[in-house]
Amino acid sequence: MSDPRTIPPELIELLGDRLTIDPIIREKHGSDESSHAPHPPDAVAYPESTEEVAKIVAICASHALPIVPFGKGSAVEGGVVAIHGGICIDLGRMNQILSINREDMDADVQAGVTQFQLNEHLDGTPLFFSVDPGGEATLGGMASTRASGTNTVRYGAMRENVLRLTVVLADGRIIRTASRARKSSAGYDLTRLFVGAEGTLGIITEVTVRLYRRPEAISTAICAFDSIDNAVRTVIETIQSGIPVARVELLDEVSIDAVNRYSDLDYSVAPTLFFEFQGTSASVTEQAASVEVIAQQHGGLAFQWATDEVDRERLWHARHQAYYAMLALRPGARSMTTDVCVPVSRLADCIRETKREVDECSLPSPLLGHVGDGNFHILFLIDPERPEELAEAERLNRRIVERALSMDGTCTGEHGVGLGKVDFLPIEHGEAFHVMQQIKATLDPQDLMNPGKVLKQTS
Amino acid sequence: MSDPRTIPPELIELLGDRLTIDPIIREKHGSDESSHAPHPPDAVAYPESTEEVAKIVAICASHALPIVPFGKGSAVEGGVVAIHGGICIDLGRMNQILSINREDMDADVQAGVTQFQLNEHLDGTPLFFSVDPGGEATLGGMASTRASGTNTVRYGAMRENVLRLTVVLADGRIIRTASRARKSSAGYDLTRLFVGAEGTLGIITEVTVRLYRRPEAISTAICAFDSIDNAVRTVIETIQSGIPVARVELLDEVSIDAVNRYSDLDYSVAPTLFFEFQGTSASVTEQAASVEVIAQQHGGLAFQWATDEVDRERLWHARHQAYYAMLALRPGARSMTTDVCVPVSRLADCIRETKREVDECSLPSPLLGHVGDGNFHILFLIDPERPEELAEAERLNRRIVERALSMDGTCTGEHGVGLGKVDFLPIEHGEAFHVMQQIKATLDPQDLMNPGKVLKQTS
Repeated sequence: MSDPRTIPPELIELLGDRLTIDPIIREKHGSDESSHAPHPPDAVAYPESTEEVAKIVAICASHALPIVPFGKGSAVEGGVVAIHGGICIDLGRMNQILSINREDMDADVQAGVTQFQLNEHLDGTPLFFSVDPGGEATLGGMASTRASGTNTVRYGAMRENVLRLTVVLADGRIIRTASRARKSSAGYDLTRLFVGAEGTLGIITEVTVRLYRRPEAISTAICAFDSIDNAVRTVIETIQSGIPVARVELLDEVSIDAVNRYSDLDYSVAPTLFFEFQGTSASVTEQAASVEVIAQQHGGLAFQWATDEVDRERLWHARHQAYYAMLALRPGARSMTTDVCVPVSRLADCIRETKREVDECSLPSPLLGHVGDGNFHILFLIDPERPEELAEAERLNRRIVERALSMDGTCTGEHGVGLGKVDFLPIEHGEAFHVMQQIKATLDPQDLMNPGKVLKQTS
Repeated sequence: MSDPRTIPPELIELLGDRLTIDPIIREKHGSDESSHAPHPPDAVAYPESTEEVAKIVAICASHALPIVPFGKGSAVEGGVVAIHGGICIDLGRMNQILSINREDMDADVQAGVTQFQLNEHLDGTPLFFSVDPGGEATLGGMASTRASGTNTVRYGAMRENVLRLTVVLADGRIIRTASRARKSSAGYDLTRLFVGAEGTLGIITEVTVRLYRRPEAISTAICAFDSIDNAVRTVIETIQSGIPVARVELLDEVSIDAVNRYSDLDYSVAPTLFFEFQGTSASVTEQAASVEVIAQQHGGLAFQWATDEVDRERLWHARHQAYYAMLALRPGARSMTTDVCVPVSRLADCIRETKREVDECSLPSPLLGHVGDGNFHILFLIDPERPEELAEAERLNRRIVERALSMDGTCTGEHGVGLGKVDFLPIEHGEAFHVMQQIKATLDPQDLMNPGKVLKQTS
């Protein structure tokens, strides 16, 4: 670990014991859940308000110190790794729910609020927050990576669910990106510019998100298939039929095996879809019946229903724990996760070709997917002590990305660019990549906002 | 009309007779459907490809000639008025539907394709394009103004329905803003940056839009109310109940009277909601029954159903003709249209206070609204020969905008900024306005792309 730079005395004066150079805390803030090599920041700051973030950023700007925002550290593309050191801004203490606007079905929260915290707060109201990336994450982090998750197919990703942001810019200015109106044509869409910018254009300190009415009825089922191809075709036909399925998740046989072991379940070890239907009782019954017919036509076995809440929670808990279940397939392993997303018409081909290649490699490589969106992940489980395994995973990931791009898809559906996809961004975007560089150079001329992430160079 | 500037000979060479300085054509391209004072461009160009647009822009850039994109001229905020002259790029000949991707439920089209043309093309398929601003508009224009319309409450605005764009930048570079994947976290959201930029950052030449499955069943009804307040409360409660109403439109008694006269109908002259329900037969029946109960609880009279397609089309035709019906209330009048959008919790207050003020003015002022989104319009019908009437309408509009902003709303829900809202933009956005100026200055340093629109000054 390199010696930390001199910390500006104004920063120490501003934050007192809410600024730390404790090596253990710095180390914890220098990595996420991925296999990206960690690098600690020089210090970690714990601001409690937007104004304080603005002051921190202004001080850092005057000392040319890099700034890296930090939520829960639950991302997987190395977005929080402080490769150039600098000050990590941990937003964890900015965890106030500012207002729940029930009539407007939205919520104003500080960036450090997590999706679990918000939904617990909404318990007992008719409303819920939809975006569900699995592991616990802050809304600021989820906005920054344009996160999505299991029910994006019905409710959209963070892109669709953020109404506005409060952002601290690289020079310490504070902006609010929009009003609280549901729609607007008033100028450039700054909300969507900062959603997905991964802290490279500014620090998100407050988020206004849409809420939805809790459905009157929910039903959940899993269905095993004779082939992954048929599972994917079932999903495509479901979407095309206009059935408003709330969740439809694919786990391949390797993943299901991992989930069975980890959560003590006995699902058939076969490619499997997890479905959730939401609506009125009548509508849920109707949706489920329609999907069951589609599944049968594509080699699906009988639906296994989880109708009561306990069963349903057990099933989705198993799905949400899938990441940890997969890691447990190889104790001590780190994961290298792929995240391509392609037009659904190409998804079956993309998965088939990918599986064929991956099945030949030596690494455990479970697959799961938000297939309604055309998005799937493979977790390569690698021994962190064996660099040749990381190299193998990177080689395979590169081929998967190239395949997705050749199918008019994207290198990252929901995890962000971080460090992991910086080399692919210019390939995916061509000339548009230079426009991103121009915007970065304009809003962060010193290249201090999470430098080295998203865009490798800014000139 | 001022003498046109010298047209660069390269432009004439490039376009031949697809470049015109005909005064009548120039005049037609210098105004939209609003009361904004027209100003013709120096010439009108009719490119047939993205590459040709790029060449035109590059030539204009080298001669410092302003560039104004033109679709159908159906907007109402003066966005196409060539206040600084220059070259109007009429995208009307770029009207090719490039591909319909049925499995992916999207369409690639050139920017000059209209929503009617696309939906006619989709006749006989299970798919339709949802965004419905009423009058005929090009998809490029709709993307540029971030348009929405009657079924935004269910299907979203252009912001949600554009998957990607091809854009010609101010220096003639051509970019594609995204892949065709349904979601992506790969870098800055350039798609959303150009959606709503009204041609001030670049010219949209191709658009990829989402398509939806045609519903199995549709039913439509109107319902009159004893007060506009109760009509609005019915809508709010409908949305909060999670009923996926496809359309819910408010017409006040003045508008209904106009529609009756114009379309030879005999609806009760009272505040009225137009509803449309879409889904399976069972779901449509269920939705309609739920909404009928809510309406009854809020002073709604009996629903008048339009169940067969002829009735339904007559009803929505009447609604779509409402703009022209209102204009016909005062033959020879031009309209000055307001477009505020507020959080729905404030909508009843906003409409009540606005109506009270408007009822005292001397101008015919029908009101209609996409109330599910919190968005409503008042059409002030003014005699173009009497500047005091325009001044009166502008005074009232200013008060309506101030009211909306004080309610955390926006000055324009769907019409764009154009010329009409440029003074309000800095008030609405505060410091964020300067970020918009920075982006404009970066991507259009010569201020040639639709100059004077959206942002009054770029320095």
